[in-house]
Amino acid sequence: MNHGRIDDPTTRLVALDWGTSNLRAYRLGDGGAVLESRAAAGGVMAVQERRFETALRALCGDWVDGRAPLIASGMIGSRQGWQEAPYVACPAGLEQAAARLERVALDGGASLHIVPGLRCVGTDGQHDVMRGEETQLWGAGLAPGSVAVLPGTHAKWAWLGAAGEIASFQTYMTGELFGLCTKHGILGRLMRFEQGAPLSEAAFQRGTRLGLAEHGNATHVLFAARTAGLMGELAPEALPDFLSGLLIGIEIGSATRRAKPRELTLIGDDALCARYAAALACAGIQATRAPDEATTQGQWRVAEAAGLLTERAR
Amino acid sequence: MNHGRIDDPTTRLVALDWGTSNLRAYRLGDGGAVLESRAAAGGVMAVQERRFETALRALCGDWVDGRAPLIASGMIGSRQGWQEAPYVACPAGLEQAAARLERVALDGGASLHIVPGLRCVGTDGQHDVMRGEETQLWGAGLAPGSVAVLPGTHAKWAWLGAAGEIASFQTYMTGELFGLCTKHGILGRLMRFEQGAPLSEAAFQRGTRLGLAEHGNATHVLFAARTAGLMGELAPEALPDFLSGLLIGIEIGSATRRAKPRELTLIGDDALCARYAAALACAGIQATRAPDEATTQGQWRVAEAAGLLTERAR
Repeated sequence: MNHGRIDDPTTRLVALDWGTSNLRAYRLGDGGAVLESRAAAGGVMAVQERRFETALRALCGDWVDGRAPLIASGMIGSRQGWQEAPYVACPAGLEQAAARLERVALDGGASLHIVPGLRCVGTDGQHDVMRGEETQLWGAGLAPGSVAVLPGTHAKWAWLGAAGEIASFQTYMTGELFGLCTKHGILGRLMRFEQGAPLSEAAFQRGTRLGLAEHGNATHVLFAARTAGLMGELAPEALPDFLSGLLIGIEIGSATRRAKPRELTLIGDDALCARYAAALACAGIQATRAPDEATTQGQWRVAEAAGLLTERAR
Repeated sequence: MNHGRIDDPTTRLVALDWGTSNLRAYRLGDGGAVLESRAAAGGVMAVQERRFETALRALCGDWVDGRAPLIASGMIGSRQGWQEAPYVACPAGLEQAAARLERVALDGGASLHIVPGLRCVGTDGQHDVMRGEETQLWGAGLAPGSVAVLPGTHAKWAWLGAAGEIASFQTYMTGELFGLCTKHGILGRLMRFEQGAPLSEAAFQRGTRLGLAEHGNATHVLFAARTAGLMGELAPEALPDFLSGLLIGIEIGSATRRAKPRELTLIGDDALCARYAAALACAGIQATRAPDEATTQGQWRVAEAAGLLTERAR
């Protein structure tokens, strides 16, 4: 798919947002401005027999052999991806990641530079990982010491240090659990899903408040999404929003228990960020949206820190 | 299937344990002793077009038209079952349930008596429900003031009052979440399942300890079952037991946070009860197993309290 072209010859960077399901390619000009974008369902899991270069050239072969450097972030750097870019340990700044780009040689001499993911160890001694989100964080214009949240299948909370580095982060399985419980579980049986229906605000807020207060009873509290339906307290079409609020409330309650920020930045798509903003408001936290181009801005900044942009000029 | 017959003509009660997937029928003699048992995959969800009587007669038509009264417990009394037996509110004793049996008239004049489930409202204001487990609790020989746990898809914790009544209870979605995460979720992707393999004790205990300590971070802590695999800390065949320990630990931590009993009774199958006993030991709680015939003993006691056994003698 070709999502429009601006005829500007000065391609400074080809930036690939290469995830599990999709491959999104951007042609960036000065300052990382998006000149052109293309996307295909060519994610890591969709590429047959590890033919990553074929998938890349199918989408933007005309960009690959130009003079612009190529950078990629996301699951393409995982063990299941093209070439593993080992996780960099937190605290980690842009410079540490830029110093650890994984270089993949393409046919014809060009190179693709893969941004490494991050890992950290929580206070509970468990590892956590992210891959792709670190680049969005670096492109979101976050202030040192601030907090950012990336809602999604595996939502990420990131805490920035005094120098703007990613000090620590935590993953919440919020989106995945919502999908599992509604698609495959008993909670979905009492629910009705209406495509494009507006958020059932009362049910969502009720779920959020319950989730915020659960404090250690998550696997019990989730059952309320069944009993509220069984007892006729919530209509079948309100139950999905109740469960969504519940899971987001559990996440916010957990992530802010030790230190509750007054504000934070949300990075993600409109609908999900609106949900999170509403739930955060319930918790007394004000949310600001990051600019839409956080990913490409992050890729641009990493490329710059790695000297890829000047390299090209040589 | 016919699981053996003891030729004893004195059938005092026909007891049906009729759940979502299976129908188990027992012919009980004096004192509720099991004389004969049969089972079929004739659970509520398996019966087509609500032909419950056909399913019942297919399994034990020869028992139905005898002189013994019939009692049933489990999902057969739900809205999706044969006839709804409305939930009785906690605190509830055997007598309250016995007074609210739902009578179903069978062809030929016999009656089936369905034991009602229980409901209660938690300190968080949410409803909880059980159906079938209440009968097992009444048959488990529990002491007044004691605590009992029924592991399973939706594990139940029950707290008994001073008069032996069920004062309150809580459901945990432990078994369902384990199934969803391992069968349909990302956590299952790094796992290897070995039929009949012994419990990986170290991994199970590690999960249990993490779950016991999570205190409000459940939807984050679950992600450790991915990272422990990613980081090579646990082998693929140990990961299922790690996740199992994690979920059981979360459950025990939650259910015992306000008041930790020194001991409790486990009601359920051997393998699952052994897992729970090990996890409870981690938490410093001693577990005792209820007798295997808790269900039929409970059905016997309810029938007795309802006067069904003397009724038959008329």
